Amino acid sequence: MAGEVKLAIVGATGAVGQEMLKILEERHFQLKELICLADPREAGKKINFRGEELTVRGANEAAFKEADIALFAVGNDISKQLAPLAKKNNCLVIDNSNAFRLDKEVPLVVPEVNAEDIRSHKGIIANPNCSTTIMVVAINPIYQAAGLKRVVVSTYQAVSGAGKAGFEELDEHTKAHFEGKEVTPKVFQYPIAFNVIPHIDVFEENGYTREEMKMVLETQKIFHNPGLKIAATTVRVPVYRSHSESINLETEKPLTAEEARKILAQSPGVIVEDDPSSNLYPMPLYASNKDEVYVGRIRKDISADNGIVLWVASDQIRKGAATNAIQIAEKVVSENLY
Amino acid sequence: MAGEVKLAIVGATGAVGQEMLKILEERHFQLKELICLADPREAGKKINFRGEELTVRGANEAAFKEADIALFAVGNDISKQLAPLAKKNNCLVIDNSNAFRLDKEVPLVVPEVNAEDIRSHKGIIANPNCSTTIMVVAINPIYQAAGLKRVVVSTYQAVSGAGKAGFEELDEHTKAHFEGKEVTPKVFQYPIAFNVIPHIDVFEENGYTREEMKMVLETQKIFHNPGLKIAATTVRVPVYRSHSESINLETEKPLTAEEARKILAQSPGVIVEDDPSSNLYPMPLYASNKDEVYVGRIRKDISADNGIVLWVASDQIRKGAATNAIQIAEKVVSENLY
Repeated sequence: MAGEVKLAIVGATGAVGQEMLKILEERHFQLKELICLADPREAGKKINFRGEELTVRGANEAAFKEADIALFAVGNDISKQLAPLAKKNNCLVIDNSNAFRLDKEVPLVVPEVNAEDIRSHKGIIANPNCSTTIMVVAINPIYQAAGLKRVVVSTYQAVSGAGKAGFEELDEHTKAHFEGKEVTPKVFQYPIAFNVIPHIDVFEENGYTREEMKMVLETQKIFHNPGLKIAATTVRVPVYRSHSESINLETEKPLTAEEARKILAQSPGVIVEDDPSSNLYPMPLYASNKDEVYVGRIRKDISADNGIVLWVASDQIRKGAATNAIQIAEKVVSENLY
Repeated sequence: MAGEVKLAIVGATGAVGQEMLKILEERHFQLKELICLADPREAGKKINFRGEELTVRGANEAAFKEADIALFAVGNDISKQLAPLAKKNNCLVIDNSNAFRLDKEVPLVVPEVNAEDIRSHKGIIANPNCSTTIMVVAINPIYQAAGLKRVVVSTYQAVSGAGKAGFEELDEHTKAHFEGKEVTPKVFQYPIAFNVIPHIDVFEENGYTREEMKMVLETQKIFHNPGLKIAATTVRVPVYRSHSESINLETEKPLTAEEARKILAQSPGVIVEDDPSSNLYPMPLYASNKDEVYVGRIRKDISADNGIVLWVASDQIRKGAATNAIQIAEKVVSENLY
C-alpha cells in the first residue's frame, strides 16, 4: 500500500465507511495498512480494497494499538465509547459523529475553511454535520470577502442522510405508493415518498431541531465566531442522495452577484454552476458521487441592504462526511500531526 | 340550483377547473346556472355536477353574454384574449392566471387578507399565484400584530403546480427509475423524480425566476405595501400535491413564538399544527384536499432581533387556486358586486 500510515476505519461496513474505502482508492491515499473495523457481529466479513481482500474485525482497544489514525463512521454512542480507547493508545480519531463536535478540546474541521485548527488537536478531530460542512464551504468565501452579519438557511436533505435504512425506506415507500399499499414509517416520522418532513433529529427546548442547531453552533465554531447570527430550517425531501440548501446571506460590506460568482469560482472545493440562460444550477441528482459543493442561483438579496442569495447542492455522504474526513486525514499525514 | 347567479367556469376540464366544480358542490354555492367552458376542441364533453350532466361548451363571447361571473382557470394567453370579451358583456371575471395580477385596475385578492379590495373591481378580479396566496394567509396575522420589515421564503412546490402534466411527469419519471429507463423531461427542465429543481417559471433579468418575483410583487400589492422587503427562492420537489414554505419573518415589534401561535390559531383560513412533542407539523401529504393553510414549526428567529420562523403547507390547487377564486366569488355575490 506504499506509505507509513496504518489507518483504521471504524464502521467500515456502513454507508459512510463504504464510501471512505472508495475515496481512499480514488485519492490514492498512501497507506502502510488498512484496518477495517465494525461491530463484532460483522467480524469476518470480507472487503475488497485495491485488489486485496481485507477481513473485517471487531472494533476494540487491541485494534487501535495497531493503528495510527482511525476514521470513525459510527453513531454517537459507539464514538463516545471507542474514541477514548483509540486516543489512549495514540491512535488519532477523526470522528464523524456528533459526540465531540462542540467539545472545546476537539477541533471541528472543514479543510477548505479552517484546516489550521487541525494542529491543535489533542487526539480527536471532529467532522461536522453534513449540512454544516456543505454550507460552510459555500459561504466561507463570501464571509472572507465581505463579512457576514446573518445567515438564513432552509435545507432539502436526502434520505441517505439517515443512512442505508433511510435510502431503503424511500425505496419501499415509493414502491408501496404504486402498489396501493399502506406503509409503516420506521426511519422517518411519516411516509417520505412524495412528501417533505420538516423534522430531522430531535426537537430542542427552543423549538428548533438538533439538526438545525448543529448548523448554527457548528458553523459558529468552525468560523471562530460565536456571535454569528444563523437561523436554519432543516427538511427531509424524497431524494436519495445529496443535500440542497437555500441560503440568504447578509454581508457586512456590499458585494455584487458578479463579484460573489467570481470569488466562489476561485474557491477550493466549490464548483459554480450558475447560468440561467442555459438552465444551469446545482441539483442533488447531479451533485451525487462528487466531492465538491455546487453553488448557483447566485443573486443579490433584494430584501437586504447588503446580501447574497445562494442555492447549493452537494453529496452529503461524500463532502458531507467521508470525503471531508479523508481530507482531514490527508492534512494530518502531510503535516505529520498524528 | 337555487340562486340568482349564472356562473361560468372557463377551463372546466383542467386540474383547477375540475377542483372548482368539487368546491362549488362542497360549499353549496347557490347558482341559477353553471356554464362549463373550455377549449372548443373539448366542446361536447360531459361533466357531472350535483347529479346533473352538463355539456362543455367552447369558450366564446356568446357564452359570456349568458353568465354573470366567470371563473377563469386557463393560461395567461387565453385569459388575455377572453377576459376582455367577458368584461365587455358585463360578466365579472375572477382570473386565476398571471395576466392581470399586477394591473393597477385589477384588485388582487386573498379574502382572508384584503377582501375589501374586491369592491374596487372594474370587471376583473385577479387570484394570486398559489405560492403567494399560501404565504400571505400565513404571514398576514403576524404582519397585523407586529408589523413586517422583511420576509425570506424558500418553497417546496408540488409538481401539480404545473398542472395535470406535471403530476403525470412525476409519476412517469418515478416508474422509469424503478424500471431502469431513461426519461426525457417535458414539463420540467430536468428529471423530477428523486430530485429537486430550483427553477419555476422563466428567469428574469435580476437572476430571480418569475415565480420568485410573483411572490415579491404580488405580496406587496395584496398588503398595499410596495416597500415591503421580500426575497424568495422557489423550488420544485417530487411531491404530487400541496406546496410547503419555509418562512423567516423580521417583525417591527417583538412577538414571542407563543404569541404568534395564539394569533395564528385565531386567524381565518389558518390551522395551526405545532406540537414538537407529538411530531405535529404541517406536511404536504396531509394538507392535500384541504382548504386551509397549515402553519407550524412556529419559533423565534434566533438570527434576528425581532423575528418569527414558520413552516407552512397548503393545497396549491385548492387554497392556492380554486378555493381562493370561489371565496372571491362568494364575497362578490354576498355583497352584490357583480
